[in-house]
Parts: sequence; structure tokens; C-alpha cells
Amino acid sequence: MLNVAIIGASGYTGVELARILCNHPQVCLTAATSRQYAGKALSEVFPNLRGKTDLICENLSVSELCERADLFFAAVPHKTAMDLVPQLLQAGKKVVDLSADFRLRDVSVYEEWYQKHSSPEFIKEAVYGLPERYRSQIRNARLVANPGCYPTSVVLALAPLLEEGIIDPATIIVDSKSGTTGAGRSAAVGTLFCEVHDGFKAYKVGGVHRHLPEIEQELTAACGNGVTISFTPHLLPISRGILSTSYASLTSAISSEKIRQLYLDKYQNEGFVRVLPDNCFPATQHVRGSNFCDIGFAIDKRSNRIIVISAIDNIVKGAAGQAVQNMNLMCGFTEDTGLEGAPFFP
Amino acid sequence: MLNVAIIGASGYTGVELARILCNHPQVCLTAATSRQYAGKALSEVFPNLRGKTDLICENLSVSELCERADLFFAAVPHKTAMDLVPQLLQAGKKVVDLSADFRLRDVSVYEEWYQKHSSPEFIKEAVYGLPERYRSQIRNARLVANPGCYPTSVVLALAPLLEEGIIDPATIIVDSKSGTTGAGRSAAVGTLFCEVHDGFKAYKVGGVHRHLPEIEQELTAACGNGVTISFTPHLLPISRGILSTSYASLTSAISSEKIRQLYLDKYQNEGFVRVLPDNCFPATQHVRGSNFCDIGFAIDKRSNRIIVISAIDNIVKGAAGQAVQNMNLMCGFTEDTGLEGAPFFP
Amino acid sequence: MLNVAIIGASGYTGVELARILCNHPQVCLTAATSRQYAGKALSEVFPNLRGKTDLICENLSVSELCERADLFFAAVPHKTAMDLVPQLLQAGKKVVDLSADFRLRDVSVYEEWYQKHSSPEFIKEAVYGLPERYRSQIRNARLVANPGCYPTSVVLALAPLLEEGIIDPATIIVDSKSGTTGAGRSAAVGTLFCEVHDGFKAYKVGGVHRHLPEIEQELTAACGNGVTISFTPHLLPISRGILSTSYASLTSAISSEKIRQLYLDKYQNEGFVRVLPDNCFPATQHVRGSNFCDIGFAIDKRSNRIIVISAIDNIVKGAAGQAVQNMNLMCGFTEDTGLEGAPFFP
Amino acid sequence: MLNVAIIGASGYTGVELARILCNHPQVCLTAATSRQYAGKALSEVFPNLRGKTDLICENLSVSELCERADLFFAAVPHKTAMDLVPQLLQAGKKVVDLSADFRLRDVSVYEEWYQKHSSPEFIKEAVYGLPERYRSQIRNARLVANPGCYPTSVVLALAPLLEEGIIDPATIIVDSKSGTTGAGRSAAVGTLFCEVHDGFKAYKVGGVHRHLPEIEQELTAACGNGVTISFTPHLLPISRGILSTSYASLTSAISSEKIRQLYLDKYQNEGFVRVLPDNCFPATQHVRGSNFCDIGFAIDKRSNRIIVISAIDNIVKGAAGQAVQNMNLMCGFTEDTGLEGAPFFP
Repeated sequence: MLNVAIIGASGYTGVELARILCNHPQVCLTAATSRQYAGKALSEVFPNLRGKTDLICENLSVSELCERADLFFAAVPHKTAMDLVPQLLQAGKKVVDLSADFRLRDVSVYEEWYQKHSSPEFIKEAVYGLPERYRSQIRNARLVANPGCYPTSVVLALAPLLEEGIIDPATIIVDSKSGTTGAGRSAAVGTLFCEVHDGFKAYKVGGVHRHLPEIEQELTAACGNGVTISFTPHLLPISRGILSTSYASLTSAISSEKIRQLYLDKYQNEGFVRVLPDNCFPATQHVRGSNFCDIGFAIDKRSNRIIVISAIDNIVKGAAGQAVQNMNLMCGFTEDTGLEGAPFFP
Repeated sequence: MLNVAIIGASGYTGVELARILCNHPQVCLTAATSRQYAGKALSEVFPNLRGKTDLICENLSVSELCERADLFFAAVPHKTAMDLVPQLLQAGKKVVDLSADFRLRDVSVYEEWYQKHSSPEFIKEAVYGLPERYRSQIRNARLVANPGCYPTSVVLALAPLLEEGIIDPATIIVDSKSGTTGAGRSAAVGTLFCEVHDGFKAYKVGGVHRHLPEIEQELTAACGNGVTISFTPHLLPISRGILSTSYASLTSAISSEKIRQLYLDKYQNEGFVRVLPDNCFPATQHVRGSNFCDIGFAIDKRSNRIIVISAIDNIVKGAAGQAVQNMNLMCGFTEDTGLEGAPFFP
Repeated sequence: MLNVAIIGASGYTGVELARILCNHPQVCLTAATSRQYAGKALSEVFPNLRGKTDLICENLSVSELCERADLFFAAVPHKTAMDLVPQLLQAGKKVVDLSADFRLRDVSVYEEWYQKHSSPEFIKEAVYGLPERYRSQIRNARLVANPGCYPTSVVLALAPLLEEGIIDPATIIVDSKSGTTGAGRSAAVGTLFCEVHDGFKAYKVGGVHRHLPEIEQELTAACGNGVTISFTPHLLPISRGILSTSYASLTSAISSEKIRQLYLDKYQNEGFVRVLPDNCFPATQHVRGSNFCDIGFAIDKRSNRIIVISAIDNIVKGAAGQAVQNMNLMCGFTEDTGLEGAPFFP
Repeated sequence: MLNVAIIGASGYTGVELARILCNHPQVCLTAATSRQYAGKALSEVFPNLRGKTDLICENLSVSELCERADLFFAAVPHKTAMDLVPQLLQAGKKVVDLSADFRLRDVSVYEEWYQKHSSPEFIKEAVYGLPERYRSQIRNARLVANPGCYPTSVVLALAPLLEEGIIDPATIIVDSKSGTTGAGRSAAVGTLFCEVHDGFKAYKVGGVHRHLPEIEQELTAACGNGVTISFTPHLLPISRGILSTSYASLTSAISSEKIRQLYLDKYQNEGFVRVLPDNCFPATQHVRGSNFCDIGFAIDKRSNRIIVISAIDNIVKGAAGQAVQNMNLMCGFTEDTGLEGAPFFP
């Protein structure tokens, strides 16, 4: 049994990590930290966990943490992570960092979109934790930068097309819609029930969302050349789920069948990617609660564009589930351990 | 007092027409037809109307209808409308037709996307009922083709930019999201609560939704040249509301301020279009229950694109409200009569 | 035109008051106060109001307020109200107070459930603002204590039965369910979208909700004897609406028809109470956005109990709408002015 | 590996059974029947199951069924079940019947509330499948009548109090609220998204819901005397979840601590019942997707009543999960096999 701990357990990613880990047969969840709820049972903060864990939220120092576990899920905000993670690594621990601090390989890009980086020397060794693209590196990593939720949905959808030169990278437009768990659990008027319910809106319009450089980094890696995209996130009145609708011009005439075969080939050994059949399209309610990424597409012959639609559960494949998938790889466990559950519908 | 009737009152457009008309000070709602609910009080079918109307749903012949009213709202499916509307016109009545049957000016386009047209001779005299673009013709029309919900949201957003040559028509991509009232009130598994709730999906992907030629017709009219767009509709887990996110490349460098001024100029006398200030974007919950169309935009300098976001209540400005606005124009009433209510929030 | 002002305009009751008042033909809304948003346009705080009002939120002293209006809607928290309202009255103004501070006629009951009362001398002149029960007093009042949302739904449902001795007051159990607007607009984890959505729970279980003494006061007034009830509120994942399910034992055998006739008689002249026909029951979605209270009932012969179900929109008939109804009475306007709109469905 | 089959797989109970069974380590799901979808992949009917099962929906005769499996989940409507189940039993199979046909031990009660029973001789051997009350009999049963969703939530809450004589059985009032999955997956206007969303209503008011005799049967068994209750079901705008609020008068003064201890004693060995601590109350969102029943209560001293609140996921503990729990018992598997997952929140 591997001892693992969640640092920053009081958010939606934290509770989802705890939900998955408390049923994982090869790990023992030994600590859950929370400054705000220190002293409270985790199952008091999140009553769904009652009977599944006896953990008490604690406010632990790094050295105390290091006595508790060998692998850490850092679910703290960016900036906090970049100060914390290096200390864990220096103590010989493995870390899956769910913040943005080690995702961008170019520190200057990071500093342009976030802030000054305090530990740039660790960026180089961090592996971008998208198993479908970096599995072998993840296996050997001690620091995995768990991808953002939007990037996970977009990169899995578009990378295969870019790798094969099927779409023109200059024409990519991504219109994404996310459930409200993506906005976190802090008390704020903007995410109150009455503000979000029965409504829908865009936010961070005009290419200013911080997931943008992360998406571009990974699409550029797939393409070989620098990719600049348009990306607009929206807020859905649902708890879980991201659906990304991506548009791009085809570089040449190609049949739907060929593109489907390409996707099937790329993902034939991927347990968490489901390429949908012809004329089927993803829905967030069909991946709810699971680590799946569903991908469907159609060609719009009138405009010579492809529309690729991808759906994930943003706090599973877009956060906690992918983090556990990464841990499984880092620790030599079967990749889907703890993540076998079928999606919940309805 | 003008006598008016609703033909096809048992759908969501029907009940919304009844809601608006029962408080309209210059009309008297004299008939509401429904084959399915004939003999039942309209307020039994829609208990929200209890105490507001005593109408009984009836199954009336055209000649019976003609004795009841002078202006008709035809809220029947396409195909049914094209057979019915000419008879009303020939009896000297005015008609606001909410179906698609008289929206497309080119009958061959209609027949390509729908079916054979039985009354092509009436297409020519039908006026496309978007008051912000065809007000003077509507004033003199006896047949108004009330626009589709998606087209209303898109045309109001993009026509001003096309008229001024600010965007490249070949690059237009429209990603639209609609509330579930848009799917109608027929019993169907796909629109059951448990199928739609807490979920999100695209449908009619790949340029196959029938509102596409309607949008293109109106954008072409604004542009002067043939416009082909990509259009993807999605289904939102809300009752009312459409939000359209439209993308297009700018033809030249232009400031946000200039574009905002352009919108403000175009819509300065329009009571139902609200151009939002800088860095504000529409939300369906802020137009809920009203006849407003809210428009906001941002320029994405990195990709030289403009993103225009527009929101309407799909059964008000996208159907029943716009139909009443058209009636007001056709009958010389003040344009916003019966439509003055502020949106409901929350 | 009467000048009116909203004190405490930044909550959900405030925005609903503004929505109603901006279309009221006999009043002019001259001020909206908010400490938090002072200096911001009210339509920036609540974008649904854009184009309907130009008011700027202000932080005004009592003397400044008094220069602005002749009637005030006090939508501030209890405790704040009891200090503010007397000053307005002493300046010769009329007040509709939406807090609890002047609802309970027995100051000792108030102080048991809330806190020390600073202006007990004003309690006596305050009229409980339920027009269906205190219309003539409201007409002459200068201070109206606008009822709580739960009490409105319960008192309208049960008072007629108690007045006629049809039910045993010792057996009354009220199970109420409220939409989340009832919890207010303060940032709090408990009312975040993700906490409330797709869920349901009770709160203040065991006879501890502060609306309890208010309900008992009014049922006691109807009954003639002291009434003690059980009352359990629940939180619904909807924005607007309260549905109360009330249970009581019948004192003697009585037919459904007789009870229905009793309700019809009591409410025959009431424009905002809709007594539903046999076998029809209220639904919050059928009163949404309106000032209606719908009442339905059934007799459970097996247990000799009556079940009365009542539904209101908690921020209309349960708050802002009833406040405007009271203002209309206090100022000699037609009682339903500004409140004529039919409910929104769907 | 035990071969099992789902008869009637196309409803919400069917898909939930399939979700649970496809991850159950000791069974093999060998058939899923559906008349409507025969020939279609189950994962096409329910795309959440894609990649989890390759089963094709079939329309199988009883003899074909019997070749496929040794234990059957009958998820067909009542009436259909009473004809089908005996044939399976006669073929030597075990059956968990999710219909109402074998739940009521008194055939005359069944025939009063449902219709003529075609197989009354099998009622006697059927065991009521509430493991917390009939575990030993279930272990030896070949026919288990899986309880209704409402009865599960109510009986677990009230039976311990009745057994100890703590509450007066004549005073029991149960106010229950159910998610919309309870209404099934048939196309019907009343359960369309737009009819249910953002709304709330009661139905089957006045003691006429068919779960009533089932609840009374089990409460009577706990009490020793005939129990008659009032029961009102309501429809929640959520997919999954039942919350029942039960009221009863206390027979004598008793402390909260004693009652809590009683519940803790009764349920100390029950893995699926969580007795909540003082001042904590269940919420449907905290049992979502799990087989838990959460129970909390408060004493209302003012009225000498106890209010017990219980919550389950209606399609898990209220249907499919409890059915699997029963199968586990019938087959000697560990009782929580396949049901270990923690609830999903949010």
C-alpha cells in the first residue's frame, strides 16, 4: 500500500480525489490538509464521504507532510504550488501537481500569463500529465504537472489531426463550455446558485483565459509549428462536465471515414478515450463521474471545416481522475485502478 | 381593440403568445386552436394562465377562424403553415407566421432544406420579420415571416459588421446554444428532464441545421455577397435562452471603440437591442422573459478575430415576443406595447 | 407620480422591486441604496435592468433619503430596519418594511426569536401586510410590515379553514420548500451553485425557523386560540418559488365540495389568490414571476386529514410583489397595478 | 462467475443495473432485454455505457432467457412481472423483481391498489428485499421483491422508532420528495425538461400513491399493530434522490441522545445506513450515486413531535443498488460488492 496525501482537500478537486482514493485498492490516504477546515473531519466538510474516510483536515508543515506519505496530490492554487512542490521533491517525494505552475515549459510564457516563477529549475523536469501523449515520461517522473481541464478536452481532440497535417493550425477556433465546479468552491456572488442556474454566459472573452497558452503549447507540440488559436470559455449551469467544440479548416479533401480511422488508430489502446461512431456526438452527461474523454466529429462540406466535439468530466479526467491515472503510471499500478466506474446517467 | 387568434396554441410558443397577448392593451385574444386539447381550457393546459384568460382550445376551420379575428399568429409546424396561411390572406386577414415556410426568399433553397413548397407565390410578398432590419416593410405587410430563434440572435450580432465590411464573410463561425423550449413540447425521450438536466451536447453538427440557410440569407443581404458560414447548435439545460458566440476575422486593424460606436449607431433607436459596454458580455439570464437582444464583443488581437456574443430569450425575441413586435408594427401600435417588462433575474 | 425609493437594493428582493417598479405607471423610482455597490449603476449590478433604469446605487443618509421620496421600501436585514424605519416615519414618510422587525405584534415573542427591539413603540402601529387579511388597515397605514415568504404561503392556505373550525389547530404540520433566492445574495459556500444544484435538503429542522412565530401569530388570529404548529423548511434547487404542504386533522366529516366552496367564497374577490379545481394542485412553475398564490387541497379519507398545498413566487408574492401590492393600497392605486403580468411558463 | 440478466433494460433502473453490474467482480451480465430497442447495442441506448459493455438489447422468450443466466433482475412494469417471474422460478432461477407485484403480502391489498393478481401463490415465498430488515430470509430466497423507492426511505427511518414504541403510529405524516428518474423513461409531456425544470409540485395527493400500502405494511410489521399514515409525494427538479420528511408525535418525553443511540444500535452493523450526528440532516446530493440511506432527526419540543429525515438515491438504494445488494445476499457474495463507491458530490 502506498501512502498518499491530498494537500488542499477542501475544494471540489480535493473531495473528488478523496472519493476516488478512498476506494483505490493500492493506496492509503493518510492526510488531507486544509487551513480553513483544520480540525474538522473531512466527512464533515463533505458529507458524501461519511463512512468512507475518517481523516481529519489538518494544517501540516512540509516536514510533517513528508512523514505521512510518499506521493502527494497538490491541489492548491498556482503560486502556492510553486513554493511547496520543490520542498516535497527535495524530500524525495513524488508529486502530482494540479495547479498550473509546472505545466508551461517556457517560463517566460508562464510569467506572462501568471506571475514571476519562484522555482523555474523544476519546470524542466516536470512532465505534462496527459497520459495519452506522455505516458512513458510520466512513468518515470517524480513531478507530474496535471493538465488543465479545458486543455485536456481540446488537446485530445485536436492533436491527432495536427500530427497528420489534416487541419490548418491557423484556423483553429475552440468554443468551450464548462460546468461550475471549474470555478471552485470559494464563496463568491458570481457562482451562487441563483446567478448560474437557468442561465449561460461566456467569460474571459477575447483570448485571455490562462488555459490558452497551455492549449497552444500542446497543439504546437503536436503540430511541429507554433499554433495560435481562438478560445472562448463559457459557464454551464451544470456541476460537472466540459464540452469543447473545435473548428478548423481541412487542408485537403478527406473523408469522414479516414478521419475516424485515424482517431481509432491513435486511441486504440487508450482505455479512457472513446471515439464515437459516425453521427454520434459527445454529451457531458454521458461521461459524468468517469475518467472518459468522448470524441466525435463531423465534416462541414459547405465550408470545408471539421467540427470536433469532445467531452470530459472536468473534475475527473479534467482534474482528480487524471491525477490518479498519473499516480497509477508513476507507481506502476494498472493505469485504470480506481477509475473503472462507468459514467453516471442520468 | 384588435381581435387576434393563436393557431397552434398548445406549444411553448403558443403559451408565451397567450401570456403576452392577455396583457396587451390593444388586442383581444379571441381564439386559441389546438387539435390535441380541443375542448380544454387553455388555462388547464397551461395553468400559469389561470385567471388571465378564459379561452377554450378549439379545433376550428379556416372559415370559423376568419370570423374570430383580423390578425393571426400561426404557430403551427412548417408544411402545415404553407397550406393554412394563404387561406387566411385570401380572406383578407393579416398573419404573423412563426413557421419557416415563408422565411426563405428563394424557394429552391427552401425546397432543398425543407420540402416541396405548396404556395411559392406567397413567398414574395412575405416580409422577414426582423424589425431592426425590415421595419418599414413590416409596417405595410399582411404576411410577416417571423424569424427563427437562432437567426435572430446571429443576424442582429453580425449584420452591422458585414454591412461595414469589418469582417471577412468567409471566416464566420457561429457556435450557438439554446434552451430546451426550442425543442418543442412534444413528448419525446430526448427532451425528458432526466436526459437534458445537468448535461450539455451539440446536435445537428456539420452544417445541417435548417436555420443555417436562413442565417446565410440575411447575412448575405447585409454583406452584398454570398455568405457561407459554419453553424453548430447545442442544447442547454435551461428552459429559455439562446446565446450565440460568433467568430470572424477582421478585414483590417480596427479598435474596439470604433466597433462599439458602430453598434451603438446602428442600434441607437432600437428599443430591444442592448449593446453592452466594454468588457461586458451577455448572459441568457439577463434577458430571460424579455424581448431584448443583448450584444457584446471582444477583439482577440492574438488571432485578429472578433468574437461577438449575443443573447435572447428564444421564445420571446426568438419567437412570441418578436411576433407581437411585428403585430404592433403591422397594426400601427407602439412597437413595444405588451413587451415593456424587464427581464426576470434571478 | 409618487416618488419611491428602495433602501437595500442589492439583494434579490431589491432587484425584483426595481423590476416591478420601473414599469409601474404611477411611481417614479428615485433612489436605490447599497453600501456595497455605491457609485455603481443599478443596471451594472443587475444587468437585466439595463435600459430600464438609469439609477446609480447610493449610500444615503436618512435626511438625504427623505428628500428623494415619499414612500420607502426597506429591504434591509432585520435589526437594521428597526433603527431606520422610525426615522422615516418621523419624517412623515410611508414605509413598506420587508424585514421581520415589525411583523410580530408581541415584542416579547420578537425578542425571543430575534433580539432586543429598539423601537417597540412602532410595532403597535405597524400593519401586517397581507392584503387578503388586512386590506382596510393597510389602506390607512403609514408602516406596513411586509410578511415573510413562508408565512404568506401558509396563512393564505390555512386561515380560512381555521376561521371556520374545520381543522384541529393542534394537528397542523407544515412542510415547506423554498427556492434559493430565499437564502439571499450574500457570498456563502452553502448557496453556491454546486452545493444546491441537483440536490435537496431540509434546514432549521425541529421548529427553529424564525418564520414560525409569525405563522403561528396569524393562524392564532384566524383561529381565536393559540396555535402551535410544526414547520420544516427545505431548500429547492430552483431560483424562485415556495410550495407549502400543510397537514391537519379534520374536526368533522366534511366534503371536498364544501371546503372548495369555502375557499372560493373567502377568495372570490381576491385577484391574487387562485383556488384550483378538484384534483388540481399548485406548482411553483405556474406562479413563477407573478404575484399569485395558488391553493389546492385533497382530503385523505383514510387518515381523516386534509392536505392543503399552496404555491407562491417567494420574491414576488413572498416579498417584492406583495410590497408593491401594499404600496398600491397605501396610496390609493388600483391594487394590481404593476403586478398584472401572467406567470412565466416554462 | 454468476451469469445474470436484466429483463427490461431500457429504463433508468435498467441502465443503473447495467452500470453497477458491469463492474461487479463476481457476475457476468449476459443479457439485457428490451422490446423497443431490440437489436440495438445497450451502449447505443445509453452512451454512458460505451466501452463498459458490448451487450445488444434483445427480445427474448423465457426459455431463451433461461439459457443465459441463473439470476434475473426483472425491471419490467407491474402486471408484466407477475406473469413472467413464476416462469423463471419454475425453471429453477433466482429472481430479484423490481416491480410491485410481490411486495404486498396480502393479495387483497395488492388487488385493491393495483389489479387482479395472476400468481398469488408466489407472493408467500417472496421475501421483501430490504436487507436491513429481512437479511436472513433474503439469503435463502429465490424470489426477492425489491422494495419501492419511497418505502425504502421511509421504513428505514421509522421502523426503529415504531419497534421501540417511541412514536404514536396514528400520528405519522410522511412528506416525500423524489427526483424525476422515479417517473421513468417513457416519453410524456409531464416529464419533459421544460415542465419539470425550475419547478416543484406535489402529485398523488390525498393518500392515493401506490407505495402507501407498502409503507404501511412494513411499518405495521415494525409496530405490531395496523398503521395508517398520510403520505404525499412531490416531484423534484433533480434526476436522482428521494428525501422523506416524516413527522410523528412522541409517546413520552425522551431525549435526542437516547433516540440517536437507538438508531446507532439498530444500524451499527449496517454498511449502507448512515445515522447522522446531532444537528446534521441528510441531503440528496450527499448520497447521489451511492447505496447509502442517510438518516437525521430533530425533536420539536414545542409540539412534542419528532421529525425524521431520510435520503437515498432513488435509483440506487431505491432500486438498482438495493437489487444488487439483494443478489449479493442471495448468492453468498459480500453484501457491498459492486456498491462500494462513495457518493458523487458535487
